[in-house]
Amino acid sequence: MNVFVIGIGLIGGSLARDIKRSRPDTRIFGIDANELHLDEALALSLIDEKADYGKLHEADMVIVSIPVDVMVRELPIILDAVNDDAVVFDAGSTKALICKTLEDHPKRRNFLACHPIAGTEFSGPSAAIEGLYIGKTNIICEIEKTAFKLQERALQLFHELGMRIRYMNPEAHDKHIAYVSHLSHISSFMLGKTVIEKEKNERDIFDMAGSGFESTVRLAKSSPAMWTPIFEQNKANVVETLGEYIENLKEFEKMLISDDYEGIYNEMNNTNKIKEILNGIPLNKK
Amino acid sequence: MNVFVIGIGLIGGSLARDIKRSRPDTRIFGIDANELHLDEALALSLIDEKADYGKLHEADMVIVSIPVDVMVRELPIILDAVNDDAVVFDAGSTKALICKTLEDHPKRRNFLACHPIAGTEFSGPSAAIEGLYIGKTNIICEIEKTAFKLQERALQLFHELGMRIRYMNPEAHDKHIAYVSHLSHISSFMLGKTVIEKEKNERDIFDMAGSGFESTVRLAKSSPAMWTPIFEQNKANVVETLGEYIENLKEFEKMLISDDYEGIYNEMNNTNKIKEILNGIPLNKK
Repeated sequence: MNVFVIGIGLIGGSLARDIKRSRPDTRIFGIDANELHLDEALALSLIDEKADYGKLHEADMVIVSIPVDVMVRELPIILDAVNDDAVVFDAGSTKALICKTLEDHPKRRNFLACHPIAGTEFSGPSAAIEGLYIGKTNIICEIEKTAFKLQERALQLFHELGMRIRYMNPEAHDKHIAYVSHLSHISSFMLGKTVIEKEKNERDIFDMAGSGFESTVRLAKSSPAMWTPIFEQNKANVVETLGEYIENLKEFEKMLISDDYEGIYNEMNNTNKIKEILNGIPLNKK
Repeated sequence: MNVFVIGIGLIGGSLARDIKRSRPDTRIFGIDANELHLDEALALSLIDEKADYGKLHEADMVIVSIPVDVMVRELPIILDAVNDDAVVFDAGSTKALICKTLEDHPKRRNFLACHPIAGTEFSGPSAAIEGLYIGKTNIICEIEKTAFKLQERALQLFHELGMRIRYMNPEAHDKHIAYVSHLSHISSFMLGKTVIEKEKNERDIFDMAGSGFESTVRLAKSSPAMWTPIFEQNKANVVETLGEYIENLKEFEKMLISDDYEGIYNEMNNTNKIKEILNGIPLNKK
């Protein structure tokens, strides 16, 4: 099988690594706007050879793991270039605009809209991890729009990689993911900003910060090039969830200012049930 | 050496465990308001025997690891009960009120104000971890107010446990810790609240949440009984830092609403330097 990975970073690189392990006879072609990433991917044996769109007609499977703004621009071109029997799937963190962009594409049946929920705050080929997708959820949208035998080919691979599959429409995906992923990134970035602004003398942060701080600001290391277009594409949902978050923080602030410690205790106590909810999450333990 | 641990949970229990390992001939006495915790601590061999304040005159060292409101009430009584050669140190997350409360105590020289910055989101004796303090920072306030030979006794133990020592005045401690610890807890609790409120159907959270979400809401599992009095005692600093955090979030919201994606990119890009800052943090890897 010829697999083309377009965007050979953390997500695409980890997929390439696992496919290699699961199917050693697969030939993996890498395409990336960043030539250095391609060299690195070759050196790390994530890919067997560099390629470009001119070779895409040889693909049995194409994985597109690039920032979602580039995705919307490139996916129609990629679909144009593949043969009628190729399956193209993406790994974008937004789904509505991508699905909308492709709804009338003549090769829509060659496309499968996916969001494998896995990753770390790092990026680039060197961030690729073996076994990243084991036990992770892969959300698939509009499965019915993909040709049956191509669905099957992709699902077989996801199964081999250890993924759990969930089906959802693109709008529901974007709404829920705003709460459980996009908001976390904003809260983390702004937390990092608040502390950096205040603590000009970084030694103070360095010496006093513990694992709790590290945990809450971890996502502030994420790539702005990847996250800016995610916030743009999911603007309506993100604005809504961010507004609710700010309201909750203001409520907490008000309780604190008015010395309502019973209220503060109750807020925290009610939120403690996140324990039970999180117990079910298939984690990407690092 | 007779060591009394008052409050035998995550912090006190982990200290007990490490002292046992470092000095096997030490006898460890447990005192706790919760009889079940004492039984558990005995069963886990964290302590050698249960005790009460009536026995405190036998102590060479007393570790007080209880919620900071109880601390302020109990520390004067504990100091009254120990002999002139005992050292009493605390592990409270706030320092100003504790130091102020004891400033005129006749046994002030027997007290060492400490904040070992270590822990997890869990609590109780079963949460105690061996080696929790290795490489962690222990902030000591007003060292000059403690008798020299008692300083020495405590510092020798901290050294054996692998701690890094930093000296700071109580006000500076409370100000900085608001940024690198207290704010993280509020951001995490309110993030958890926002998501729980919205996602009444918990299956959606369960299926879509990844490691990023888990990381940012981890602290929302923390104990309200421990954290409410911390926020109360550090109210002024926490209100200030929380206000700045809310302002930064509102600014981000404004940029998003006005489609200022260049601004959003720059914000994230500037905050990425948290990477280098965090590289220096001695982490409590779980």
